[in-house]
Formats: sequence, C-alpha cells, structure tokens
Amino acid sequence: MNRPKTDARRHHDPDVRGFASDNYAGVHPEVLAAMALANGGHQVAYGEDDYTENLQRVVRGHFGASAEAFPVFNGTGANVVALQAVTDRWGAVICAESAHINVDECGAPERVGGLKLLTVPTPDGKLTPELIDRQAYGWDDEHRAMPQVVSITQSTELGTLYTPDEIRAICEHAHAHGMKVHLDGSRIANAAASLDVPMRTFTNAVGVDLLSLGGTKNGAVFGEAVVVINQDAVRHMKHLRKLSMQLASKMRFVSVQLEALLAKDLWLRNARHSNGMAQRLAEGVRAVHGVEILHPVQANAVFARLPHDVAERLQKRFRFYFWDESAGDVRWMCSFDTTEDDVDAFVAALKEEMAR
Amino acid sequence: MNRPKTDARRHHDPDVRGFASDNYAGVHPEVLAAMALANGGHQVAYGEDDYTENLQRVVRGHFGASAEAFPVFNGTGANVVALQAVTDRWGAVICAESAHINVDECGAPERVGGLKLLTVPTPDGKLTPELIDRQAYGWDDEHRAMPQVVSITQSTELGTLYTPDEIRAICEHAHAHGMKVHLDGSRIANAAASLDVPMRTFTNAVGVDLLSLGGTKNGAVFGEAVVVINQDAVRHMKHLRKLSMQLASKMRFVSVQLEALLAKDLWLRNARHSNGMAQRLAEGVRAVHGVEILHPVQANAVFARLPHDVAERLQKRFRFYFWDESAGDVRWMCSFDTTEDDVDAFVAALKEEMAR
Amino acid sequence: MNRPKTDARRHHDPDVRGFASDNYAGVHPEVLAAMALANGGHQVAYGEDDYTENLQRVVRGHFGASAEAFPVFNGTGANVVALQAVTDRWGAVICAESAHINVDECGAPERVGGLKLLTVPTPDGKLTPELIDRQAYGWDDEHRAMPQVVSITQSTELGTLYTPDEIRAICEHAHAHGMKVHLDGSRIANAAASLDVPMRTFTNAVGVDLLSLGGTKNGAVFGEAVVVINQDAVRHMKHLRKLSMQLASKMRFVSVQLEALLAKDLWLRNARHSNGMAQRLAEGVRAVHGVEILHPVQANAVFARLPHDVAERLQKRFRFYFWDESAGDVRWMCSFDTTEDDVDAFVAALKEEMAR
Amino acid sequence: MNRPKTDARRHHDPDVRGFASDNYAGVHPEVLAAMALANGGHQVAYGEDDYTENLQRVVRGHFGASAEAFPVFNGTGANVVALQAVTDRWGAVICAESAHINVDECGAPERVGGLKLLTVPTPDGKLTPELIDRQAYGWDDEHRAMPQVVSITQSTELGTLYTPDEIRAICEHAHAHGMKVHLDGSRIANAAASLDVPMRTFTNAVGVDLLSLGGTKNGAVFGEAVVVINQDAVRHMKHLRKLSMQLASKMRFVSVQLEALLAKDLWLRNARHSNGMAQRLAEGVRAVHGVEILHPVQANAVFARLPHDVAERLQKRFRFYFWDESAGDVRWMCSFDTTEDDVDAFVAALKEEMAR
Repeated sequence: MNRPKTDARRHHDPDVRGFASDNYAGVHPEVLAAMALANGGHQVAYGEDDYTENLQRVVRGHFGASAEAFPVFNGTGANVVALQAVTDRWGAVICAESAHINVDECGAPERVGGLKLLTVPTPDGKLTPELIDRQAYGWDDEHRAMPQVVSITQSTELGTLYTPDEIRAICEHAHAHGMKVHLDGSRIANAAASLDVPMRTFTNAVGVDLLSLGGTKNGAVFGEAVVVINQDAVRHMKHLRKLSMQLASKMRFVSVQLEALLAKDLWLRNARHSNGMAQRLAEGVRAVHGVEILHPVQANAVFARLPHDVAERLQKRFRFYFWDESAGDVRWMCSFDTTEDDVDAFVAALKEEMAR
Repeated sequence: MNRPKTDARRHHDPDVRGFASDNYAGVHPEVLAAMALANGGHQVAYGEDDYTENLQRVVRGHFGASAEAFPVFNGTGANVVALQAVTDRWGAVICAESAHINVDECGAPERVGGLKLLTVPTPDGKLTPELIDRQAYGWDDEHRAMPQVVSITQSTELGTLYTPDEIRAICEHAHAHGMKVHLDGSRIANAAASLDVPMRTFTNAVGVDLLSLGGTKNGAVFGEAVVVINQDAVRHMKHLRKLSMQLASKMRFVSVQLEALLAKDLWLRNARHSNGMAQRLAEGVRAVHGVEILHPVQANAVFARLPHDVAERLQKRFRFYFWDESAGDVRWMCSFDTTEDDVDAFVAALKEEMAR
Repeated sequence: MNRPKTDARRHHDPDVRGFASDNYAGVHPEVLAAMALANGGHQVAYGEDDYTENLQRVVRGHFGASAEAFPVFNGTGANVVALQAVTDRWGAVICAESAHINVDECGAPERVGGLKLLTVPTPDGKLTPELIDRQAYGWDDEHRAMPQVVSITQSTELGTLYTPDEIRAICEHAHAHGMKVHLDGSRIANAAASLDVPMRTFTNAVGVDLLSLGGTKNGAVFGEAVVVINQDAVRHMKHLRKLSMQLASKMRFVSVQLEALLAKDLWLRNARHSNGMAQRLAEGVRAVHGVEILHPVQANAVFARLPHDVAERLQKRFRFYFWDESAGDVRWMCSFDTTEDDVDAFVAALKEEMAR
Repeated sequence: MNRPKTDARRHHDPDVRGFASDNYAGVHPEVLAAMALANGGHQVAYGEDDYTENLQRVVRGHFGASAEAFPVFNGTGANVVALQAVTDRWGAVICAESAHINVDECGAPERVGGLKLLTVPTPDGKLTPELIDRQAYGWDDEHRAMPQVVSITQSTELGTLYTPDEIRAICEHAHAHGMKVHLDGSRIANAAASLDVPMRTFTNAVGVDLLSLGGTKNGAVFGEAVVVINQDAVRHMKHLRKLSMQLASKMRFVSVQLEALLAKDLWLRNARHSNGMAQRLAEGVRAVHGVEILHPVQANAVFARLPHDVAERLQKRFRFYFWDESAGDVRWMCSFDTTEDDVDAFVAALKEEMAR
C-alpha cells in the first residue's frame, strides 16, 4: 500500500526505524485497509454506527458477555475516563509511582478528572497487596482523599508483567476494601502474547473492573477503548467520555481499527512480533560486556544501563530515550514493524560504541 | 478505493446517505491516500515528525507568518484548548447562546477548562459589538468571572456567516476592552468558500487571535488544529494540549490529513460542494409550499420549519435531526459527498410527505 | 458590648450605616456573646464538638427529623458544596439567569464544582415549571450537560418571594424529571419572616432536597450551613465539604453562631426587623415623585429606578450600589441593624436630591 | 469573659484540655475582645473595610513594604489560593510527601486548583535542594506537569524547623530553576518564636515569594491570610480568592483577628507558650523509659513512639492522635492554652500507663 519514497508528497524516509517508542511506528497495512473499507456512505456519528456495534461483539468475545467498549482517542483519555467512572468527587487512585497516569500525562488525571493519585514506589512497576496497603487506609477520614480504585498497568511501564494470579490477588484485596481495579492496557496485547493466554485470563477472569484497551501501540493510527467489565461499577459512560473530550464524531473509523486488530489475530501477531524482537534484542545486549539489563524483559521493552557517553553516541545512530539520564538508564522499545535486521544492526552498533 | 459492498468485512451500505450531519459522511479518498503515504518507517511521536513540520508551512500559507498549528483530535478539544490558552483561572468567555461550546460539549469548557461562559441570545447565531456589550463589563469586580475572550463561530451553528468586516468590528471591540478573539472554525472552509475569500481574510487580516481549524467535517477521518495567530496571547500550548488529553502520539497521521485538505485545494473543493448542495436543497425546499426556511442559507446547512408529522415521516426515509422539536424546526446538513441526486430525491420525498 | 468610639483600637465609626448590603452590617451582640460562651477548654475540631452536635438538634427542629446541617464558611461555599452533592460529573444546574451562583460567584460553581449552569431569564428572579422546561430536556443526550438539579433562591436576589405552593410546584416538576431541588437560603430568614411561616413550610414540607442556610446576612460574623433534608440524595458530605475548602477547624464557633440565631427567635427578630425597614423605606420612596420601585418589596431589598445623577449624588451621602447602571437601577438593602432614623434620613435625602 | 460552666447555653466543659491538636483549643480572649470592638456600624464588605486596610500596615511591618495580605477562611484555602497564584494550568508543586497539602486536604489542591503535586519522601518533613532535585526537571517536557513552585512548611508537619539559611538555600535553588517558593505558615508563629527571630528573617529576607499565614492555631476563631511578598509573581489575587470560595463578606472580623494577634506581641506570646509547653512535655517524656521521641522538638509538637496498648489506654484519659498507628507513633500537640498542670498530669498518666 505504501507508495514509493520518491512520491513528492511523502516527507519522510519509510526505511528508517529506531527503538525510541512503539508510537514512532506507523500503522499496520491491514488497519489502513479496514479504514478504507469502512469508508463511503453515511453512518450515524458519535458511536451509533455499524462498526462500533460490531466492535461490541468482538470485545465481548475477548472480555466476556458483560464487556462494553467505549472507543476513545488516546491512552491518557482512556485512563482518565475510566478512572473518573469509578471514583466520586472525593476519590483517589492508588497506583505505582512509575505509572503512566502519574508521570506521563501532564497532570491530566488531576486536572481533568480532579483525581488524587496515591502513589507507591515499586521496584519493578508492579503493585502488590502489601504495597497497596501503604496507601489503602483512611476511608472515613474526610481529610484524606478516599482510595476508591487501584490502577495497575499490564504490561507495566518497565516492561514487566503481572501473572494472572498476581492480578487476582490485587483484585481480591482491592474489592475486600471496597475499591475497584482498573488496568491500564496500553500494551495489553504484549502482555497476553507474552503470558500466552487470552486477555480475559488476567482481566475479567480475575476480577478487573474496567480497563484501558490499547490500539495505537499495537498498530493502529490512533484509537483505544475503555472496556467496562463490571457494569455495576459505572454509569453514564457516554456522558463521561464526551465531557472528557474523547468522543470521536466519525467513530466508525476508530472502531474499525480496533476491529481490524481484535476480530482475528492481528493484535496477537503484532504483539508476538514486537515481544520477539525485544527478546532478540535482550539476547544480543546480554552478550555485550558492560551493558546491564535492568528489568525482566517480558514484553516489548528492554531497559538497560550503559555508560552515558556510549548511549549518547548510539543515539546519533538510532533514536531512543534515556529513562533516567543521571543513572545512565535507557529504554529500548520494539514495535510491530521492528525487523530482525533492525535489532541485529542495533546490537552491532552498541558493540562498536562500547568498544570505542 | 472503496471495496464492493459484498466484502464480508464491510458492515454498512456505502450507498446510503442522509442530511443529518456532515459528521455522518466518511472520508475523502485523497485523505485516506495521504495517510497511506505517510505510513511506514518510524517518525518521532507527539508532533516532532516531518508531516507536522510540513503542516506548519501549509498553515502559514493560509494564516500568515505568525501562525502555528497544534493538531488535536476533535472540535471540542480544539475549542477548550484554545480558550484555556487565552484565559486565566478567573477568566470567562463571551459567546452566543447557541454556540457549540455552550450547548453541545457536555460542559467540557466548564469542567475541563474551568471556564465560565457568558452567553448572549442572538437571532442568527452571530455576535455583534452591541451584543457583546451585554456581557462585557465588570473586569474589576472579583465577584464576576472576568471576560477575557470573545468566541465566535464561522460559519455559525445556524449556517449563517460573518462578513470579514463584521469580524473586524468584533475584534476591534474586544481588543479595545483587553479581550482576545477566538474563532470556532469547525466549518471554516464552508465560510471561506461561501464568502469566496481566503480564510485569512476573516481571521488574521481582521484581528482574530486564535482559531479552531476544522478538518473532520471537511472530509478528514478526524483531526482539527488550534491555530495560534497572535503568538503573544499564548504560552506553552503543547503542555495545554497534553493536559487536555488532545495530544496524538502518531501525530503524523493527523497532520497529513490536514495537509491533504489544505496544501492544495481539496478543502475548498469539498466546502464548495457541500455549500452548493445546500443551495440546491434550499432552492428545492423553497418550492415546497408549507415549508419555511429559517435562516439565510450561507454555508452547508438548511434550517426549516415544517409540520411535525411530516418531519417524522420524512425521517423514516432520510436521517436528519430536529433542531427545536417543539417548534417543528429541523436541520438539514449537506456534506462533501452529498450528490445532486441525494438532494433531488430528498426534495421529492419532502414534497410527497407534505402532500399526504 | 461595643466599646466607645474613642478606643484607639477601633478603626471605624460605629454610627455610620448605609443601604449597600446586609453584609455591611456587623454582628448581633447575642451572637458574639454566644461565641464567648463556647470559648474555653478543648473541643474536638472539625465538627465533632458539642456545639455542632447541638446544632443538629436545633436544625432538626426547624427542618424535620431527617435534616442534617453541615456548617461551612460562606454562601458560595454552601451553594457549591450543596450542588456538587446532588450532581454527577456530567450534571448541570438549572437556575435563574439572575441567580447568585450565576452572576456573583466568579465562576466558582464551574471552576470548583465542574458544574454547568443552564440559565433561564426571569422577570422577577423566580423560576416556574414552565421556565424550568426551557432547560429541562436532553437527559439522554451525551452532548448536553445533564440537568440534575434545579436551584432556586428564597428570598430571591431581586427581593421577591416564592410562595410555598410555588416551590411545591417546582419540586414536583423537578422530581418528576428525576431532578433534585436546591434552595439558596442566603436570606431564608427574611423569606420566612415575610411569609410568616416556619422555614420548613417552604422547604421540607414542599419537597426541597437540600438548602444553603444563611447566617451571615442574618447577624452572624460568618457561617452558613448546607442543610440536607433528603438524605438519600447525598453521600459523603463531609468529604465534599473538606475538598471544597469549607471545613472549619474550630467548628464550634461556627455552629454556636447558627445556634444563637436559630435556637430561639433571634433569626426571626432580625429578619422581621430588616424586612420592616425595607417596607418603611419602600413606603417613603413611593411618596417621592420620579422614583420607580421595580420589584415587589417582599424581603429586605428595595430595587428602584431613578435619574442617574440623583443616584450618584445620593451615593455620596449613603452607600448603596447600582444594580444596572445603564438603566439607572439601584438596590437598597436593609439589615438587622438598620434603624427607623436611618430610613427616614435616607428618604429625606432622596427627596432633597430629586428636588435639586 | 467566659461565663460560668453552669450557664445552660454552654454545652461543654471549659476545663477539659488535651493534646490532640492546636485546633482543639478555643480563642484567645484578646481576639474575641477585638472582634467585639470591630463590631457596630456598617463597613464595606469583602475587604474594603478599615480593619483590612489596617491589617495591611501590620503585615507590612512584619514582612516588608512589598507585602500584601489576602485574608481567607482556613489553611487549606490559603494554601490552594497561594499555589494557584504561582502556577499556570500546567504547573506542578514540589513538596514533601508529608506536606499538609499532600496528605490532609482531601485532594483540594488537585481538585480545586488542578494542581499536580510532585512529592519527595523526607526523613523530617524538610526539603533540601538535593531533595527538590528529585522532582525538579523536565520543564520542556509536555508529558510532565511543569514544576513551578516549591512549597515548604514552617514549622513542619513533624514539628521540625528550617533555619533561615536552609530556606535561603531552597529559595536560591528554586529561583535558579525559575520556580517560586511558597511557605505554608500554618504554624509560622511557632517557628519564629522557636528560632527567636522575626518572621521576615525566614521569609522575605531569604527569598520566599508568598506564604500562608496562620491565625487559627495561634489563637484566632478562624482566619488565615495569603501574604504575597513578591508582587511580580502574582496577578488578580482577589479574583482567585473569590473563585476559590475563600472571600469573607464581613471581612473586618477576619482582619481584626489577625490584627489582634500580629499588631503587638500576642502572636509571639501564644507561640512561645505553646512551644514552651512542648519542651516541658518532651522533657517529661524523655524521663519515661520505653517511650521514644521521634523528631527534634522544635515547635509545639512532640512525636513519640510507645507501645500500642499504652497509647490506647492513655487516649482514654487525654485526647490525642496516632500518627502512624501500625508503628505505634503518636503526635502530642500543645497550644496557647495548654497549662503546666496539663503537661504534668499528662506525663504522670503516661508513666502510670507505661507501668501497668
């Protein structure tokens, strides 16, 4: 579907890829093709179209009969809509200090949702019942924002994974305290692929109340969805989505992207591929003396520590980000379009720069 | 580009069109083609890509050297980001009672932006200096939300138009009181096409400080932009867009859509076409006895008053909305894909139903 | 209790009074005495003290067994806490265009509560079921902020009164549409005194769900309370009050003021007095040719229209405010400490200035 | 001024005192007397009265010629108004994890001010430039809430003190990064008394931009003020105070309380007394085997660790709070009305309960 580079209207070089983010990648061609197919004619705007209706069927197939999807624009939008849905005006969210909602959303949860985040430092981005207990108290104390939901990320911002049993333990713990559980599934596909289980195994099967279902990093143009599993926990989601400025008018084009990913196995193929590339990358890096891999490589991210000057030289050859620049920690992300050649070239470059 | 209806993955009938909304339409094929062209390879996420950079050039061509575009997801997002940018925490927005920001955004300006709207009833959706003065006072009174910006819509929610001179008068009046002027340009293309002037003629040339530039209703999948003309009036737009949950990660795919519309004349072709269809529709309707056209038909909307039962029967044949159901007022919108046959069939049906 | 004017620590002349606002008045001596009585020793902070407990008994005496008072600092605080209590994140408030919450709170309802106000112009500051219907629609439309509560003011900002039957009709209408009713009772004592009925007669007896109970304008230093009548309509009021920054630490001193007013008849004496002074003032004004009284004088306010230059000269002799300066409309307020001599001197001055 | 206990209108025993909070205490009689003196006659509402004007003179005496006081209702109100004043919509506040704004305000900073708090764990409630640096970065990163102000508490929530030089170092560090410095002075009098310096020595003299000046814990009924020192850092404080629902109508009664405390030396006498009582208490406690004092006793608080059952038995005799119940940590606060006998009786009771 891609036109030749020489097309004057193409402003970029489609052969350049890096390890900066799964958001740097483009769109899977099957997703673009599905959008084209959904084009033509008139469809009711704002979600009463045939594609959004069909998406509900697809989502129920993944998350059970009670599941309902509310397509939104982006991950921050999905998280903030979802968290507002399960909190009162006085509510608070318990989350890991490293959670995307805490560090990467410019305060949108606080500013748009009026949410208080009660954060807990974690070694690996993962909460546990014990860690949750560091913030789970004081429900009767009006001076304290009331903990009403625990938000976990799967796979985490550090590329690690919860097992289904770990999430079950969190859900049981949260529910016993009257709290709901939200799962930020910006990279849920990578988690399912890595655990080699259906997504339901670590969501509705273990008690997750609602989740942010990621599409963008899995190969869509844009498009995520709040998936509500526990319908009793929410009300008037459509109003909430609209007032949060996350309601797409031509929603068929969001829904059809999620359908393209989820109806068959494209979501899984893309996730398996990016996970596999991260494994290949980790393997290659482990063979390079002086570079330390920082977290278990369980999804599509590799976190590593290497000399600062090496990292800087390497950045001139491949795009990637420092995670903690003072410590020399970097993050390398693989995506659905990362190739084996990309990985091998990167590892070779790393070796060269370490040897200089 | 559209596949045959018989494709099992197509859930809708691409031959069905109505007059409900320009959001019911799909995407112009050239826009989809441009998205495909922007695909492939890695581009920096969140707006540092080549397409967003190029969009700036295109936007400066339309709105002058000082103009800068901040692509966002949707119209509500564009409006709320723009209005936050030119108000303090204590600021208020003067707007028409019928403004989209007042009646169609579920309170997003108030809830997300903490904005107070000071509304003025208008006969035709248009503000004037005199109407503005009904709310433009009390800047020193801490009990009153401080009027800091006037927001006008062009073309208006009632399908009417401001002349460039009318906007100039509003800008001069607002500026004389220390207020900024925001233009909600969700259908700015229709306005320019109808006035037969460049968009700059009624924006930067007459003093508009910033605007919401619409793409979706003009033929995009999704995608609008806040266009800042008066750079001195704003700061840190990127933070504001992010915290308002309007930052697209794969922004190249938003920017390339706006480029596809704006770089050459697609925006104008689409707008002229939908305006022309509205004229044809109005002409046809005027020939139907008992149906009253309510506002000047200056863009792509026709507002009419007809017997309630006729409207209801007609709705079973073509989708459209009541505007004020108790009065029997309806809105008929034309879009870039409305055909002459659509209009003629609709007028014929209207005649039939009036005759029953 | 007042010390002589000559006390060096007294910075003002206690003999000067005007007609600007019932907030210009000081405190009734019995209120100050009660505060002194509540002093000494330690009492639990934040509302678990004996005075707040006792206030509940007093408030139940006025508003019935289900009533519960939540003392707050000021009227804006009472209104915004109360309205948040009966709205969801997507909720809207139907109110008169002239309502204090709309025009005199610098957008606090919008900014602090995220509330959308759906306003209706009224001739006399009073809503009716018919006027409410101009905004009461669209509950299922996610584009519209959902009307969830009707807020009325008794006595109104224009010095007029609802009869108990008028409020009953509003409550029945609102409840039939699933909306709650809030009564802004900043001057509720004046209303009860004028109607010559207990406060319950036009609140819990006719269906009001919750109200803002005013103390300040009735002779307190400061102090109002949200009084919840319909307990099923609210949850976690204490959290809501705290997050709205309306929780007094030494609450005994707020509660004891309300007790001083409400436990016996001080509230009624004060209200009757200020109402009576307004009647005397209106009578005097009616005898002055060329001055028009604008609204029925039913509480402690007199609105009048007089030549602008006369008003300006009069303002040099007595403080009062223009209500609508362009029309020459002024507001004259009486308070618990207004004397007959004050009124007579004012009327005499008015006559003089009209005669110049 | 206190009437006999036998007065039927007195609901509490004025001889009972505890160590729960300086908010459990009543009002200093001189404050009540000053309120009575300010009573009588009419004064302009909302801050244009003679007492508020005079307060400005008093505050300038303490904090220098640029200082301006904005009286508010309570400490949360003062903090949230002050922090909003020095942040943009995208701003964040760096503070200690134990800061009142983070743990005791039910999320008001987030919900009312839309503020993001960037917290740092501290051993003793005190920030340092090094600790600030753990959050002071990323000003250009739109994904991160922008650090714009450092908020410190003096004396801290843990009863510890910053030296003037420590605050100077923080201010220099913050200013070098373009950030402002806010001081939460809920107990600023205790700090000045303990350091034996004027309040200006650790505020305007060392670079603090604005502060929350506490009156309530120092012997007022209620009443704090935002004191702006750096006028260039703020705008339209009055609007901000009003929209934050912190504007008192009869402001003369707030201002006169602060004047009563600050015009002569009542603030200092009260603070010295409560500090002295805390020293006496700490001394007594140190002599009790098995009770550990946790932080330097530098103001009017004593934090201690003792066996949980002992604490619970002791709570039946004197009111006080657990600080960290799981650890057995308690907080004992002294106030302006704590007596030597109170302290001695408490220490004796502690000894008894430890011995059981």
